[in-house]
Amino acid sequence: MHSEESKLTKIANPSAPIGVFDSGLGGLTVLRALRQRLPQERFVYLGDTARTPYGSKSPETIRRYARECAQFLQRFEVKLLVVACNTVSSWALDELTQESAVPVIGTLDTAVSAVKNLERVERVGIVGTQATISSHSYEQHLIAAGIQAKFFPQACPLFVPLVEQGMYEGEIVEKVIELYLAPLKKEAIDTLILGCTHYPMLAGAIGKFMGEQVRIVESSEAIAAVANQYIGVSAKTTFDGPSERYFVTDDVGRFNALSSLFLEAQPAQRVTLEALAGDANP
Amino acid sequence: MHSEESKLTKIANPSAPIGVFDSGLGGLTVLRALRQRLPQERFVYLGDTARTPYGSKSPETIRRYARECAQFLQRFEVKLLVVACNTVSSWALDELTQESAVPVIGTLDTAVSAVKNLERVERVGIVGTQATISSHSYEQHLIAAGIQAKFFPQACPLFVPLVEQGMYEGEIVEKVIELYLAPLKKEAIDTLILGCTHYPMLAGAIGKFMGEQVRIVESSEAIAAVANQYIGVSAKTTFDGPSERYFVTDDVGRFNALSSLFLEAQPAQRVTLEALAGDANP
Repeated sequence: MHSEESKLTKIANPSAPIGVFDSGLGGLTVLRALRQRLPQERFVYLGDTARTPYGSKSPETIRRYARECAQFLQRFEVKLLVVACNTVSSWALDELTQESAVPVIGTLDTAVSAVKNLERVERVGIVGTQATISSHSYEQHLIAAGIQAKFFPQACPLFVPLVEQGMYEGEIVEKVIELYLAPLKKEAIDTLILGCTHYPMLAGAIGKFMGEQVRIVESSEAIAAVANQYIGVSAKTTFDGPSERYFVTDDVGRFNALSSLFLEAQPAQRVTLEALAGDANP
Repeated sequence: MHSEESKLTKIANPSAPIGVFDSGLGGLTVLRALRQRLPQERFVYLGDTARTPYGSKSPETIRRYARECAQFLQRFEVKLLVVACNTVSSWALDELTQESAVPVIGTLDTAVSAVKNLERVERVGIVGTQATISSHSYEQHLIAAGIQAKFFPQACPLFVPLVEQGMYEGEIVEKVIELYLAPLKKEAIDTLILGCTHYPMLAGAIGKFMGEQVRIVESSEAIAAVANQYIGVSAKTTFDGPSERYFVTDDVGRFNALSSLFLEAQPAQRVTLEALAGDANP
């Protein structure tokens, strides 16, 4: 494929790390999938925890924050930029792609690709933050990809607070899931896109409520597969130094405590984005 | 009282507005109490909605943001600075007071004064965000005020998300209240301090769960009373222009939609704090 070829030529430095960012912790579910698929790679993760959550902020503010995150990761000369945040993928992916010298992978397009690979997709539920759902980005991308289905978007603003409290099951989680997903169940959807990187932590409870007949699509696996396509043809190289580095924009304590809920992560280092003041030493 | 005298002399310009700020919308419950008590006054409200919530951020970040909010309001030559945010009142009030040319009123000290005026206070529950509760500021202030009681602090991180979804009652609200407050009920507290400006919106459901024997203390009324002490001796003056102005640091749309849940507010104007770039024209 021509588009694959042109993408692959972009990776100039195979030994460089892969950059991953999110507004906070949710992107760690994407990092987890990436490192399972690509164990030989190095990763730099940035969580903009001082300004999280992005989901309730305006498109303009989201775009500004996204650009600052990308600029920070570019200082590590990353070979791939993974936007592990659905809010940013909804509002700022085109802009980031235009401004980036390396390939940019978002959650949105990869989730759409995963849906495209499914059979008999007719009634698709889409859950996400208020900003993601308001953007209608998923519907637009699904339609652009030629997926002819009826869409049922649903904002679930309490899911992220629940996940960040480590609440993945139990009565309150079940009630909140029922509050948001009962309308989708009633509509007899066949596919449910988890349009927020936090939501995979609730996938068990969501699957239990929706039933086995509903296929749940997470973008983390799809992102890992796309990243693998870029990496696949590159020469494997050895490298020195740590294979993973974590940066956050707020105090590391809370991140380190919560990141263990998502995956076994190295301790994070704190940086300032607003001024790009050089707190981190790439 | 000497301290009262020295405070009152600080108000140099009686016709100036009162400045009120919060990390977001919660402070509107304080503004509501202030304008009921002081209908002849002008108010400037700032909600730092682009960086809300503060409750999950570090003390250092909270102090930086608080200073930027205060600096913004100082451009309106406010005669009083009301910190309508428990997180900021916990972590940054001393600093703000030292740096301010006008009196600074926080939620914390006023709530403590309100408790001091109650009789037979022996078992005091304190609810707030994780940051407020972790700071132990309420216990410290209660002890410093000579209140000899046993304290039962409890972080309630899901309360703010519920309020910001306009969820003040119903099954989920009741379950979440039970999750956090059942331990306090079991401890047979006699007084409950709502240590977050969002929580008055849940006061009905909280009171229903705790029962009539538990006195609920909100700081908004106490703040209005303290502000009235400062204003009381000032010369009354007339003024031109709007009596209330609202500023936010993120898109005004969401603020305007949600502010109607708290009080009848004028439409907000958007400003940038990081650079103090002069978006607002005082």
